[in-house]
Amino acid sequence: MISTLTLHPKRPGLLELTEAVQAVVARAGVREGLCTLFVRHTSASLLIQENADPAVQRDLEAWLARLVPERDPLYTHTAEGPDDMPAHVRAALTACSLGVPFAEGRLLLGRWQGIYLWEHRRSPTPHEVVVHLGA
Amino acid sequence: MISTLTLHPKRPGLLELTEAVQAVVARAGVREGLCTLFVRHTSASLLIQENADPAVQRDLEAWLARLVPERDPLYTHTAEGPDDMPAHVRAALTACSLGVPFAEGRLLLGRWQGIYLWEHRRSPTPHEVVVHLGA
Amino acid sequence: MISTLTLHPKRPGLLELTEAVQAVVARAGVREGLCTLFVRHTSASLLIQENADPAVQRDLEAWLARLVPERDPLYTHTAEGPDDMPAHVRAALTACSLGVPFAEGRLLLGRWQGIYLWEHRRSPTPHEVVVHLGA
Repeated sequence: MISTLTLHPKRPGLLELTEAVQAVVARAGVREGLCTLFVRHTSASLLIQENADPAVQRDLEAWLARLVPERDPLYTHTAEGPDDMPAHVRAALTACSLGVPFAEGRLLLGRWQGIYLWEHRRSPTPHEVVVHLGA
Repeated sequence: MISTLTLHPKRPGLLELTEAVQAVVARAGVREGLCTLFVRHTSASLLIQENADPAVQRDLEAWLARLVPERDPLYTHTAEGPDDMPAHVRAALTACSLGVPFAEGRLLLGRWQGIYLWEHRRSPTPHEVVVHLGA
Repeated sequence: MISTLTLHPKRPGLLELTEAVQAVVARAGVREGLCTLFVRHTSASLLIQENADPAVQRDLEAWLARLVPERDPLYTHTAEGPDDMPAHVRAALTACSLGVPFAEGRLLLGRWQGIYLWEHRRSPTPHEVVVHLGA
């Protein structure tokens, strides 16, 4: 069973989609199985991280931005803007697909886990995340 | 088919769970399919790496600890201890879910591949890894 | 449904396998489902990245080679050559399995996404990528 979530990040960083994914699972009426997420872009990624203290998310964003800065003289692919190549590197270091099992119609996330889209560009466009539900 | 492994890491670093996962596959009596692992925590991750020379594992742990050190002045989320935010960053850079196909009731790991839980905190608590078997 | 692709990288870096994976999906005659890829080696990884400008791929390779250089005095596992331990670290920072949904017999990749094997060693050997198709 496949559906697509269209997300509209307003800024670079983490955008939570836990509830949207949980709603897809609930609507499907399947009790148990595997939910696989796939982001159809090369400048954004998927992350499961702590959803309690927003400072965790801000620190994560700041840490990765420092590790993979803009205007690195190493980059030769610069035609699409100074934030394009860092976005590709950041996406390569993080996940483009995630598998989350579910049971009783609920994602088996840990108590503090949330699912996030990680937008790596400064002027985001709408992003599609494909949700596959398997038995 | 879903089951849960509860692991008790005694120290930060890699804890092999290859045999425990293989036992879940064998007990299930399914010949062929996909085994998906999911860790229900945001300060640990899953890794497939060389299981031959223990120096590989020690070097990996040392390398990531150096890349993501404690007491980085960048961190604002410090209330849960100096090893908490580095654990989140290390988890974000590695995997929280893995898909490993199996056939003839055996995981299709390469000859030198082992499956590990990578604990990133200094005083580990028990960790749950969900194992999903699909056709 | 499981099959295996054997790839012959000629140099370190990215080797595209999008068409080979798409051919496996097309041959299977299944319209919709999940395609999971798994690389059976600990010195290579799987990546989904931009397939338009080859400079993106070169910059990615150069960036990771700089982050994880050879002859780092941290390494103790050096018996298998100066490119072995960096290959393990680079593999740990990237993916060994990927899940890509498909519909109408086509992988649901984004417009600019290609699937790559990322070979991390200087003298590559043949590499096996397992392809699992699930409903």
